[in-house]
Amino acid sequence: MKILMLQPKVTEDKSENLAKVEKLLEDEKTTDVDFLVLPEMFNCPYEAEKFDDYAEEIPGPTTDLLSRLASDHDLYIVGGSIPERSGGDVYNSSPVLDPTGKIIGKHRKIHLFQVNYPGKIQFDESKYLKGGNEQTVLETKFGAIGVAICYDLRFPELLRGMAKAGSRVIFLPAAFNTTTGPAHWKPVLRTRAIDNQTFVVAGSPARNRESSYKAYGHSLVVDPWGEVLIEAGAGEEKLTVELDLDKIDEVRKRLPLLDSLKPEVYST
Amino acid sequence: MKILMLQPKVTEDKSENLAKVEKLLEDEKTTDVDFLVLPEMFNCPYEAEKFDDYAEEIPGPTTDLLSRLASDHDLYIVGGSIPERSGGDVYNSSPVLDPTGKIIGKHRKIHLFQVNYPGKIQFDESKYLKGGNEQTVLETKFGAIGVAICYDLRFPELLRGMAKAGSRVIFLPAAFNTTTGPAHWKPVLRTRAIDNQTFVVAGSPARNRESSYKAYGHSLVVDPWGEVLIEAGAGEEKLTVELDLDKIDEVRKRLPLLDSLKPEVYST
Repeated sequence: MKILMLQPKVTEDKSENLAKVEKLLEDEKTTDVDFLVLPEMFNCPYEAEKFDDYAEEIPGPTTDLLSRLASDHDLYIVGGSIPERSGGDVYNSSPVLDPTGKIIGKHRKIHLFQVNYPGKIQFDESKYLKGGNEQTVLETKFGAIGVAICYDLRFPELLRGMAKAGSRVIFLPAAFNTTTGPAHWKPVLRTRAIDNQTFVVAGSPARNRESSYKAYGHSLVVDPWGEVLIEAGAGEEKLTVELDLDKIDEVRKRLPLLDSLKPEVYST
Repeated sequence: MKILMLQPKVTEDKSENLAKVEKLLEDEKTTDVDFLVLPEMFNCPYEAEKFDDYAEEIPGPTTDLLSRLASDHDLYIVGGSIPERSGGDVYNSSPVLDPTGKIIGKHRKIHLFQVNYPGKIQFDESKYLKGGNEQTVLETKFGAIGVAICYDLRFPELLRGMAKAGSRVIFLPAAFNTTTGPAHWKPVLRTRAIDNQTFVVAGSPARNRESSYKAYGHSLVVDPWGEVLIEAGAGEEKLTVELDLDKIDEVRKRLPLLDSLKPEVYST
């Protein structure tokens, strides 16, 4: 299963952000690519007070483009996330498209990001967004995949549920920052892969000095044994990586963690 | 809260293993030490087929010694673990003693270690031991503490339960090996601390070239932000570390993770 990830420098110009995705697929040899993966808020700046200005419905202009690209290039797209308008609310939502261009599902970010670290970073999505209330596991021709967004990854309960529901690859479009990124990004992503014995594919926007939110970058792909297969730097990058899905069963045979759960003991 | 940890080279001679603990406390200035922490199977080799030979009851000779040491030195002891005989069964159990010498609780390892990595390591505790069936959270004068043993740490459900039950420090007597240790030990321990915003204190025996099981060593203490406060090497070592318990509330205010749980969404 071959993955192409884009770690784009996102600007205030939505059409420029979308054109960057289109151009990537024109420039790359995509015949053997199975999944294109985009990061959280790939079509607009990660600034909570602006999400409403950029919000659109799903389906809408952004997913129309992704649909065309998925079908033109015959690949799945995990469409990072966009601000989704639905009724009077805005969600942080990740649309997933199959190679026919069909939207096969979307994940609405469940856990909204709240951080209050004086002198470092303050951010509160919950003032501007509504949270989703469903775990997202979707069937693909490579087996089931899980999708969650950024802060969702801090809750092992959610990812465990995805693994138990059969996810073999968990996609995590994200946008950690230069405070939480260096402290938490890599050990937490590796541990989710180690605990659940799945692949973890986590994308981030590139750092943009001009934006108020300093994304960490460091898009990361981890195998089911916890090994880092590829890690980006902070700047704009594209990454390709091949996932050997047989590795999942190999690791699960080695350490039968998911067969050793004792739900009758856990107090959660 | 000051912690003294011993990473002992464990031999086949139980009295020698116990004398090592006694001597440590004689040699150290223990007046300001609050907790002595020992590793998994500190009184016998970590060899599953021998656990029955070394097994004793709790209370029994080993906890009698720990009781005397706790009271003589006025400190808590997280007594690593020992093979505990109870009825016809043997458990992998961690006794905890208070500064009066009283056994205030014990944790029986819940998840028994099974690994089958051909050419690297094969081990199956479940053939020789019975598993416990209770989460262990104990009150101390420093607040609640959680205790789990080695393979238990691979199950985030268990540690989350301990944190929700108020644990501020989670003790993990363990004995990872030279295969799983380098691959998993540090990221998993750091992530448990990051997710639950508690201190994590994980002890290991030293590596002993003469024993069939090659312990990883690397006893580790992590703060609630995921920073490693101290890490041992592979050999015999004693470590001291001071835990600033105010850090817990500081980190929980910074990122209110435990207030953001959505149990209604999790499928586990």
